[in-house]
Order: sequence, then C-alpha cells, then structure tokens
Amino acid sequence: MTKMKFKLIKTDNKARLGKIESKYGSFETPMFMPVGTRATVKTLSPEELYDCGCGIVLANTYHLWLRPGEDLVKKAGGLHRFMNLNRPMLTDCGGYQVFSLAKPKDISEEGVKFKSHIDGSNLFLTPEKSIEIQNKLGADIIMSFDECPPASASHEYMKNSIERTLRWAERGKKVHSNKDQMLFGIIQGGPYEDLRKQSALGTVAMDFDGYSIGGVANDGESKEDMYKAIDYSTPYMPEDKLRYLMGVGEPIDILEGVSRGVDIFDCVLPTRIARHGNAFTRDGKLNIKNAKYKEDFTPIEENCDCYACKNYTKAYIRHLINVDETFGQRLLSIHNIRFLIKLTEEVREAIKEDKFLEYKKDFIKKYSKK
Amino acid sequence: MTKMKFKLIKTDNKARLGKIESKYGSFETPMFMPVGTRATVKTLSPEELYDCGCGIVLANTYHLWLRPGEDLVKKAGGLHRFMNLNRPMLTDCGGYQVFSLAKPKDISEEGVKFKSHIDGSNLFLTPEKSIEIQNKLGADIIMSFDECPPASASHEYMKNSIERTLRWAERGKKVHSNKDQMLFGIIQGGPYEDLRKQSALGTVAMDFDGYSIGGVANDGESKEDMYKAIDYSTPYMPEDKLRYLMGVGEPIDILEGVSRGVDIFDCVLPTRIARHGNAFTRDGKLNIKNAKYKEDFTPIEENCDCYACKNYTKAYIRHLINVDETFGQRLLSIHNIRFLIKLTEEVREAIKEDKFLEYKKDFIKKYSKK
Repeated sequence: MTKMKFKLIKTDNKARLGKIESKYGSFETPMFMPVGTRATVKTLSPEELYDCGCGIVLANTYHLWLRPGEDLVKKAGGLHRFMNLNRPMLTDCGGYQVFSLAKPKDISEEGVKFKSHIDGSNLFLTPEKSIEIQNKLGADIIMSFDECPPASASHEYMKNSIERTLRWAERGKKVHSNKDQMLFGIIQGGPYEDLRKQSALGTVAMDFDGYSIGGVANDGESKEDMYKAIDYSTPYMPEDKLRYLMGVGEPIDILEGVSRGVDIFDCVLPTRIARHGNAFTRDGKLNIKNAKYKEDFTPIEENCDCYACKNYTKAYIRHLINVDETFGQRLLSIHNIRFLIKLTEEVREAIKEDKFLEYKKDFIKKYSKK
Repeated sequence: MTKMKFKLIKTDNKARLGKIESKYGSFETPMFMPVGTRATVKTLSPEELYDCGCGIVLANTYHLWLRPGEDLVKKAGGLHRFMNLNRPMLTDCGGYQVFSLAKPKDISEEGVKFKSHIDGSNLFLTPEKSIEIQNKLGADIIMSFDECPPASASHEYMKNSIERTLRWAERGKKVHSNKDQMLFGIIQGGPYEDLRKQSALGTVAMDFDGYSIGGVANDGESKEDMYKAIDYSTPYMPEDKLRYLMGVGEPIDILEGVSRGVDIFDCVLPTRIARHGNAFTRDGKLNIKNAKYKEDFTPIEENCDCYACKNYTKAYIRHLINVDETFGQRLLSIHNIRFLIKLTEEVREAIKEDKFLEYKKDFIKKYSKK
C-alpha cells in the first residue's frame, strides 16, 4: 500500500479545489463521503456507490471493533478487501460513539471506560488502542483519538478537554505503526474562539498528515455556532493539508464549510433520512410519504442522473416506503448520496471558474425558498 | 400488449422442455419464478433479477389490492411499468392469503369474507373481484380464484370445496376482460386421487390458457403426499398448455415436480431463508451464522456465478447478517435465487440431452448427503 497524496490545486476566495491520489483511485475535493458504519453503506452495494460518483467511504471504528472485530478485518486483508470496496477509505477514532455511551466520571487521562451498546460489557478505549484498531482496519486515512464534548460544555471543561485531547493525539501518533495510512489530528474547542485557536495550533504543531474539525453538528448547536467553530479553526490549518469537517452533511452546511476552506465531509444523513422517506431536492427536502405523491408518476427530481430518478416514480417509491420494503430505502439512499456528491461536483466546477460564491448563493436561495 | 405464447419443445420421460414468448422477452421452461410480493422481490432490483437469469416474476394480488391498490397500478401503466420490470409477470388470485385470514364459516358460494391483516377492516373477495383486480394489475398470466383448503381437510369438505372452486373458475372466466392476459385454472383436491381427477377434468373442460396445481406445500403435508398430488393431477392436464406448481421452491421438490411434468414454480423460500442467514448449496443448505464461517474467506459456493459469490466471502456476509445489515440479505437472496434458476437451467440442458433422470439422481444424492 502507498500513502494517499493530497494536492491543493486552486482556491476561489477561501473555497479550495484539491486532488487526492491513492492506490484505490483518484478524486477531486471538495467531496462528500457516505458513511459505511458497519462495513456497508446501508442497503447499498459498492457498485451503486461508484455510480453515485463516490470518491471515498467512511467506516466506524467503534462499531467494527465490537463486530466483527479488527483482527477479523485484518485477516480478511483490511477493510477494502473485506467489503470488496475499490475506493479510498477513512475510519473515525471511535470517540464520537464512545462519548455518547460514557459518563463524564469515566473519562481519565488514560482513556475512557464505557459499556458496550450491544451487551453492556465493560470496555476501555485509549488513544493507543484506537490507533491500533485503525491500523488493523487499514483505511487510507485514520483519526487521532479525541474527546468530543457537547458544544454546551463550559469553557473550563472544554479547556481541560482540548488539552487532554492534545496529549492523546501525541500518544496516538507515537504508536501509529502503519505508515501507509495518513493519520489526522482533530481540532476541538466547541464554540470558544480562544480554545479553537489553542487546539488548532497545538494539533498542527505535531505535524499530522491532515486535520479534522470536530465537535460540530453533534448536539443541536445553532448553525451560526457551527460556522463560527469552522471560522475559528481554519486560519491555523496549513494550506497544503486535507481538511475534514466531521459529521456534516446538510447541503447548505456543506456549502458553508467549503466557503470556509473545508475539503471533505461525512454524514449518515442521506441514508438515515432515506429510511424515513425523505429525499433531497434542489427545492429543499421532500417526504415521499406525503399524500400528494400518491399518483405522482414523475421521478423524485426531474433531470437527476441517479439510478432511482432514471428508473422509478415517486408513486412507486412511496408505495415501497409505505409497506416498508427495503428497495424503497435503497432507491432514496442512492438519490440522496448522489445528490450530495453531485453538489460537490458542481462546487468543484464553480471553483474552477471562480464562481463558487455565486453558485452557493443561487443554490441556497432555491433550496431555502419553500 | 400481446398474449404470451407457450410451446412444448420436447420431453424426456415426463420432464418437459418448453418455450415462452412474450412482449417482455422469451424464456425456456422449466423455470423458477422469484416472488415480488408487494411489487418488489425483497431487497432486490430488477437488474439483479435479470443477472440471476430470471425469466418471469410473481406478484401477490391480495397484497397489491390492499396497498397500493389495483387502480393506482393501472394508472401507473400496469405492474411492469410500476415496478420498471422488463420481464413477464404472473399474479396469483389472492386465495392463498385470504384463506389463511378467513374462518370456514366466512366462505360462501358468493365469495370470502375476512379481515384485512393491516387494519382489521372487513373485506370481501369474490371470483369476479379477483379477476377484476388482476385485469387491472396487468400481469401476463393471471389465476382463477380458488379455495385452498389444508391437505388435512376431510374428503367431504374437499369435495364440496373443489366443486365450488370449479363454479368460481367458471364465473371468473366469464368476467375476464383483458384478453391479452393468459387466464389459468387451478386444480385442487388435496391428497385425494379421485378429487384431483375430478378437479383436473372439470377445470380442463373449461379450456383455460394454462393450468396450476394448487393446495400443495401449504400445511406441512408430507413430501410423499405432495408428489402424489402432482401425480394425480398431471395425467389430465393437456400437453400443449403451461403447467404451474404453486408455492414450491425446495430444490428437490422442483426436480420432483419437473419429473412429473411441471413447467414453472414459485416460492418465497430463496428470499425468506436469506433473511435468516440461510443459503442453498449443492451440498444442502448452510447457515452463514454458524461459527465455523467466522474466518471463512471463501464464497458461499465455489464456482457459483452469482454476484454474491463472485465478490464476497462467507466471513463478510456472516458479519452483515449478524449485525442485521440488509446488504447481507440482499447478497444471500441473489445467491439463492440464482441457485434455483441455475438449477432449472441445468434441468433444461439435461432434458435436451435426454439425461434428466440421471441429473436429478446425481443432484439429490449430493444435496441430501450431509
């Protein structure tokens, strides 16, 4: 395996056009990453992801650690071979899932104690363990272990937290053994400008292969606070390294992220909302269960190039969702993932033509009109 | 739409090789039909069915009558267009589902009263209504409305039942308005030789486009009784019409059916057992949840040409089934459907070479060995 390479190609104001090269293929950034929580993007095949223009897929360290276990994945030849996925991959560090299961008193300098969400057994995750698991899973990009406190945490709590996360990042970097994997540092600090700066400077000083902005979009913070958290972080991030905004997938948030200099995004949103019958469209989200689509024999979106829109009507997909047939979720998931990836394609085109801000303005105007 | 055509090509002992031609494509028989209960074969796309060599798909009148309703399907342009399925289709008459919901006292000469399994509302299905619904759904082959009593019913009950079913067949034939659809009569009579004969002769006398053998495989009857029920029916079925054995999909039962002169089969088995982690193999069924497959990085079956076997390992599919990811069910469903269709392909080749009985013997020996 060879390490993935990132190259910044051009900027348009703060928006960035970049290129990733890896043994699993090349793609341009900005890019949206679908989430394959348990080594599968819910209901979809790898080929369906390729058809959506998918450049890279995320998988969850916490879930794969528990089932099937990182040793099995390693024996299978790593995540790509296990899943038969011929695209670059990224794993998170497990922190986000772990901290939603742990109590504050269970967080120590050493690591985090918590109970398995499957069988209640006692588990302990440390920065070293997280990296060891991710080394075995074998994704192209892996994350340092971080604490991910709610944005509502006090300044005092947050300051202690980011300083510990810096020490954890150092420990993880030290044990990182698979030098063909890019290791990223994660910038935290909640809504506090001084702490975002401190976290960013401290993390960047360790010279990681790339940087993530964490702690946004995780507990109902306002959009303004989310955008500020990005604004407080990006000025300290090096130009030549990939920038990843974690857990963000609302179309407008992707555009706001790009406009602040972010390159890649991930979110469960496109597959999660599909299960409830929701679909992204240029004119905002629609819910296919709505009675007005009962006899609507047009596609979810006219002119959409996805498999669902080229072959099926709203009336049919509505029926499938109403009777709980998974093919309905599959069609909506394909549409939603294609929608977000198409959005990033258009963003890239706009950056190339120095028209990103115009594109963003037009998209948001139409999307928010309802 | 043009009516489907069936032609008997050759026989090998009682086994028959036939050919179906229709505006939705041609296929040879014997053929196994996957079941698309609610206008979708669970978890699969039409393209995946084509890749399995699928010649024809069944859909359930009862389920589609309730949701989304036959009028909506008609407005969509019929089942093929609604589902975007470019293959011939067959609908059952609703009887099988209705009789499992109705009590004996609710069956009258006029029809059957029963409660919806969805909302408990009162419903009434008659021979005329069943045909009217099927005319609107627009499948290529539709079924007469029949009572489907358990094989354990008394001779007296069964005699009354088949005589009523003959009167129902006559009534349905009278109202059948879409002459581009083939209408089949159904032979009942349970395990009773005289009643199978009476039902077969009475049904054939009405000159239907094809004939089904019903009332088998529906309440734990012995295999011997099932095979006898076929033996008692086929001698009275015309050579030049298609013969359909309803609800049968166990590999050995398909071979026993073919050896008695049956042409097409349907069953939910391949998709239903997939949901529980079961896969057909030449050496019998296997359950992928079995611990011995945990680190088995070989396909479900070596040399199988299905998408699942060409791309994924038992260890990966086992993981997906264990964590309840639908992509696992999808892979097993593809394998199981391909398995049964491949079985009928091999049967056709064997009949062409007058080696069917040899093929059947070898298959059963290997399949039953464990």
